[in-house]
Amino acid sequence: MFIRQIHYLLALSKTEHFGRAAEACHVSQPALSTAIQHLEEELGVTIVRRGQRFQGFTLEGERLLQWARILAQDWECMRQEAAQCNRQLTGTLRIGSDHTDLQAAMDRNITVAEVTYCNSNSVAEHVVMMTLALVRNYIPSYNWVIKGGWNIADCVARSYDLEAMNVGTVAAGRIGLRVLRLLKPFDVKLHYLDRHRLPEAVEQELNLTYHSSLESLTKVCDVVTLNCPLHPETEHMINEQTLKNFKRGAYLINTARGKLCDRDAIVDALESGQLAGYAGDVWFPQPAPNDHPWRTMPNHGMTPHISGTSLSAQTRYAAGTREILECYFDGRPIRDEYLIVQGGRLAGVGAHSYSKGNATGGSEEAAQFKKD
Amino acid sequence: MFIRQIHYLLALSKTEHFGRAAEACHVSQPALSTAIQHLEEELGVTIVRRGQRFQGFTLEGERLLQWARILAQDWECMRQEAAQCNRQLTGTLRIGSDHTDLQAAMDRNITVAEVTYCNSNSVAEHVVMMTLALVRNYIPSYNWVIKGGWNIADCVARSYDLEAMNVGTVAAGRIGLRVLRLLKPFDVKLHYLDRHRLPEAVEQELNLTYHSSLESLTKVCDVVTLNCPLHPETEHMINEQTLKNFKRGAYLINTARGKLCDRDAIVDALESGQLAGYAGDVWFPQPAPNDHPWRTMPNHGMTPHISGTSLSAQTRYAAGTREILECYFDGRPIRDEYLIVQGGRLAGVGAHSYSKGNATGGSEEAAQFKKD
Repeated sequence: MFIRQIHYLLALSKTEHFGRAAEACHVSQPALSTAIQHLEEELGVTIVRRGQRFQGFTLEGERLLQWARILAQDWECMRQEAAQCNRQLTGTLRIGSDHTDLQAAMDRNITVAEVTYCNSNSVAEHVVMMTLALVRNYIPSYNWVIKGGWNIADCVARSYDLEAMNVGTVAAGRIGLRVLRLLKPFDVKLHYLDRHRLPEAVEQELNLTYHSSLESLTKVCDVVTLNCPLHPETEHMINEQTLKNFKRGAYLINTARGKLCDRDAIVDALESGQLAGYAGDVWFPQPAPNDHPWRTMPNHGMTPHISGTSLSAQTRYAAGTREILECYFDGRPIRDEYLIVQGGRLAGVGAHSYSKGNATGGSEEAAQFKKD
Repeated sequence: MFIRQIHYLLALSKTEHFGRAAEACHVSQPALSTAIQHLEEELGVTIVRRGQRFQGFTLEGERLLQWARILAQDWECMRQEAAQCNRQLTGTLRIGSDHTDLQAAMDRNITVAEVTYCNSNSVAEHVVMMTLALVRNYIPSYNWVIKGGWNIADCVARSYDLEAMNVGTVAAGRIGLRVLRLLKPFDVKLHYLDRHRLPEAVEQELNLTYHSSLESLTKVCDVVTLNCPLHPETEHMINEQTLKNFKRGAYLINTARGKLCDRDAIVDALESGQLAGYAGDVWFPQPAPNDHPWRTMPNHGMTPHISGTSLSAQTRYAAGTREILECYFDGRPIRDEYLIVQGGRLAGVGAHSYSKGNATGGSEEAAQFKKD
């Protein structure tokens, strides 16, 4: 289904006119318009500015177009088969299948696949960047430059070396393990929590300490990074109670999902100093409302949800999406590492990472986001 | 000599009164006042706010006090020997002996020592942090959060993964080599330029490409980081001409010395897009005047000079300074890795890193810095 929508987007971009775009796509104008509307509803964003006629793409629309253009060269050979796709295969040009109601997909025998690995490195680099920036007090120091001042004492009063700190990841899957590897030469003491223990050889190579509970991990770590998926078992795992088990003045990095953390408990912990810093680029809901308290809480280093969307990652999305679709249309099995749900049950990497149920509730709040 | 000044500072801090401080130090008030003035002239900063009487420390003064307090516990046993010290030993609580006129020290048979290594890791971490922040477009993305907006397209239009890029260091000494080691697991292609070639085992371990000229290095690197000392041979090594040999859209990180780069050539390269970003925390002069163009040039990620002054590094400064002084007063040799000038010539690590002559000219411009 989304392949067809991408085709419509490309035609709109080329013609800048609903009627001529529909003509180019061999569909009626209402059909094209409805397809775009469905896509907007599915993604929860406005793609096209409408008036009497087509008035251009929004920034989100431009972003979709970027992806569409990468796929365009592969498009022609797939178009005819695409019409069947929407009933049996679902996917989006992103990672993290928690935004899909997996239980509903299981109930309806719909296959869910994602381009796993395509942005694991991108997110892991973001985690390391944010860890260094919080620990070394980067952004407040940069802001002294911008303000025209020179206050070394203020800059360094919160600036430490990362070296020799205890750093722990909640989950050591594709992203968490990459974070551990990237941090190895920093001479930090590495810790991890996961429901699947890593091979002994990996534990030895990285000199890892394994923890079987969040409490055990947070009691010894100066930096904690969340790299687990969101599902009913992990929702709000960081809350007022569990924050009490952190070392006072610890740093928390969350590039996984905003809903892993209780929003207000994070704000309180930063205000009281229980947390020395919080960074990440995931929010709940998304886009974050303009008055989301994480925008203004002290000592944060947040970004909008971009860690997995670097231009480098976007190129890999496109290649992976192509592979999944080619497998699907050719009747070849989709790689286990791309599969989340198949044949009515969690499958492939989905069986490894997710639990049954639905953790997508509450996103309607995202509608509170207003463009400037 | 500086030990005595530190003693005066501590007394001033304790008594908050010139007269009582002088009394506590067993010197006359003019002698104490002159000693503080000499220190201010030597460092080029104001330390004490003066009126009719003592009116408190400036921020730079507070910073010196921080160091002084760390040393205070070792002070009492050294004080009596300190009076001889100024004629034969010089040093400051910082790294990088280019702010000392080495030629004058050689001419006058003065020993120059520095606490080498004490902040190499701090600076190397800063380099990695700034590299990731520029390449991934961190600060502009953070600013979207602060502004209350959500413009993913704008954030990611300049966001890449570091992975697979070509990264090169100018000089692979203590800091440069540490940067190379920290970057190893990022799966980048590593390059270096140095007048001393690294051991073959190190080149193989890190899969390094050696370059014998700046032009050769900059022609292939996406990220260039300067980690060499400032001396007459390296002054303005990055200028309008040498910038032409960079790949278009490269990133430049300079945490070494501001004067390695021609100030206006950097601004021009950022404005034209020849450089995609510039970060670092060294300036010329320092403190940077409030209207220094590096504060406002596009796509920069500057900090005031803090990379080597994390609280972790400050602890090591103090320990190293104590060791140098203990060796000096006990008549034991100062470690080669701490020595810059001894017996009228470059010695120890100084002979490895510096050239004859003086590159300290022009700092008087720092007086243009005005406190808010």
